[in-house]
Amino acid sequence: MDILEKTMNRKTIYSGKVITLDVETVLLPNNKVASREIVRHPGAVAILPIDDQGNIYFVKQFRKAIEHELLEIPAGKLEKGEEPSQCALRELQEEIGFTSNKLTFITQIYTSPGFADEKIYIFKAENLVKSELVKDEDEFINIYRYRPDEAFNMIKNGKIRDAKTIAALLLGFKL
Amino acid sequence: MDILEKTMNRKTIYSGKVITLDVETVLLPNNKVASREIVRHPGAVAILPIDDQGNIYFVKQFRKAIEHELLEIPAGKLEKGEEPSQCALRELQEEIGFTSNKLTFITQIYTSPGFADEKIYIFKAENLVKSELVKDEDEFINIYRYRPDEAFNMIKNGKIRDAKTIAALLLGFKL
Repeated sequence: MDILEKTMNRKTIYSGKVITLDVETVLLPNNKVASREIVRHPGAVAILPIDDQGNIYFVKQFRKAIEHELLEIPAGKLEKGEEPSQCALRELQEEIGFTSNKLTFITQIYTSPGFADEKIYIFKAENLVKSELVKDEDEFINIYRYRPDEAFNMIKNGKIRDAKTIAALLLGFKL
Repeated sequence: MDILEKTMNRKTIYSGKVITLDVETVLLPNNKVASREIVRHPGAVAILPIDDQGNIYFVKQFRKAIEHELLEIPAGKLEKGEEPSQCALRELQEEIGFTSNKLTFITQIYTSPGFADEKIYIFKAENLVKSELVKDEDEFINIYRYRPDEAFNMIKNGKIRDAKTIAALLLGFKL
């Protein structure tokens, strides 16, 4: 596959705790020059935890970027050098207090390819086993459990609006 | 709904063509202080264009953030003061050269609520009418058309990996 926008210059504007912002000058296929603002993200995992009765675990937390709470499946950023499957089990324990004896990789998605490189690895977690809830003391998360039909109704009526959650539910139940 | 993280201080690090980067100091519910990196985005629309035979139009374009091409449904950023439905019809014309006599709002999703406020309004566009293809001369887009079963196979085998596209296909065909 041809690279269609060659980087002529890259300037790192900000390098923070979670993201880095680069502004790149690129050469377009018509030989014109353009500017691209790119947010670099470490990548993340999202987990669709399904219990033995077929219910799905969700978490609700306040998201500062959008200034309200959001219902999502458990998810979290990859730590440096961490394997996605390892990260999935860690987040499962930290957010809902379970481990899984059947973790299956489903797919990998891009959330905002127009301005960010964030890639999310989606897993299905079954054969859930209650473990210690090792909470991050600065995370404030509520846990919910819904049947698949309830979850799909919440997508339909706009109560679930998180892209990764919608994608995971499609891939886990409708394909 | 309670606001759980109060902004104590906001610093705008960068204000660019597409995004703005703010770093906020927030007060957590446990009275600790934390830092939040927030990318502000104007918002966008994504359109699921369906022709009279039930085929879906897609576009493929190079995405600099991920350094490769991506198959997506037509989409684009909201211009200042632009209504989402107006933006949907504009992008439909600019990207695939059609207008729609039946544009239906489906839902609104958040793509990366952990670090960005991007909100995408998803529309279904039917009764498509060929119009002039008013291309942006700096956009390099190829148009594809697939049946729904082909599209869902491509989600399953990882050929479609764009979150908004997966969400729109679920909402348009599986709910």
